Amino acid sequence: MTERGTFITFEGGEGCGKSTQARRLAEALERNGIEVLSTREPGGTVLSEKIRGLLKDETEDPPCDRGELLLFLAARAQLVANVIAPALEAGKWVVSDRFRDSTLAYQGYGRGLPLDFLDQANDFACNSLKSDLTILLDVPPEIAAERMRAREAATGTSADRIELAGGDFHARLRRGFMELAAADSGRVTVIDASGNEDEVWERVWKSVKRFL
Amino acid sequence: MTERGTFITFEGGEGCGKSTQARRLAEALERNGIEVLSTREPGGTVLSEKIRGLLKDETEDPPCDRGELLLFLAARAQLVANVIAPALEAGKWVVSDRFRDSTLAYQGYGRGLPLDFLDQANDFACNSLKSDLTILLDVPPEIAAERMRAREAATGTSADRIELAGGDFHARLRRGFMELAAADSGRVTVIDASGNEDEVWERVWKSVKRFL
Repeated sequence: MTERGTFITFEGGEGCGKSTQARRLAEALERNGIEVLSTREPGGTVLSEKIRGLLKDETEDPPCDRGELLLFLAARAQLVANVIAPALEAGKWVVSDRFRDSTLAYQGYGRGLPLDFLDQANDFACNSLKSDLTILLDVPPEIAAERMRAREAATGTSADRIELAGGDFHARLRRGFMELAAADSGRVTVIDASGNEDEVWERVWKSVKRFL
Repeated sequence: MTERGTFITFEGGEGCGKSTQARRLAEALERNGIEVLSTREPGGTVLSEKIRGLLKDETEDPPCDRGELLLFLAARAQLVANVIAPALEAGKWVVSDRFRDSTLAYQGYGRGLPLDFLDQANDFACNSLKSDLTILLDVPPEIAAERMRAREAATGTSADRIELAGGDFHARLRRGFMELAAADSGRVTVIDASGNEDEVWERVWKSVKRFL
């Protein structure tokens, strides 16, 4: 029987460097001979990417808070059932840019939806799957805002509806992530992501090594 | 202050005549000087109709059972928040072709998802809104199947993924609707829908009259 793969998720607010570090981790694992599946949320299946499109769409009929939450979870349910769970069972490692902690932080702490329901709904959507390791990249709001501006300038893209939410939203988000990490310190490792990319990567790799 | 409107939902399996009777009810109420908003599920807002499209789409990446449930609820959350609740508050009556009982019957009794979670998730999606009256149109499976075939022949359409589920699915569905009605008999009125359209309409109108 194949040994089950390890499931690692990256979490944190906008501009914390999740996507970059998730990519570096996948590359480093592959150099170590590990087969890796990289996913991002919301997205990662044909249906989930269509749902992502609905979530990012600001025109006509933007999702209400409860509808937004349910769309995120629908995309996650599809991703877990059709991509993540089969990959882990086949012995692959899975590295995901966001997973269930984002729901609790954004929709719970950020939007004020009830945390106990969100926790149950997460469990339902994921068929009880949790990550083996969650890396929470923490940066002070002023550094995150600076990185977001630099990214927009470099790519010519503009912020979406969640990225555009005010500073108070982002403060609640950061506090939420920190509380979630404190409540589940065996699974969640908090990493100071305020340094440069290589410095942060050293810290990420150190936290993953024990799973090799 | 405007008096809150009355919220009436139609429920039942495929081929029970819900859409026809819902339309007749809306017309009859309007003849009685009542302002009526008619909705159907899933759908009824720009976003909810897009979600309906994802649910009906059989190609490429059909929704898993949990994803399907969450998409239905996302469409409902948007419909309640942006259409149904404001209409009721403005004193309009709302007549909906399907609402929360369909979730319990189809995804709970039909697909086997946990009823207690579905009930909570319904409450979350609807922000606790329930119908004042639910009319459950009950027909024996053989009559429903005959009506479905007649509709397909008349319209040239073919059955979608839910309509195509096997006979055992539809038997569980019918039992589910009947159990839900028995557990909440103050809200749900079961109507024998095996007669012709006018006969069924007489029964529907009689059950609604007490709200006038």
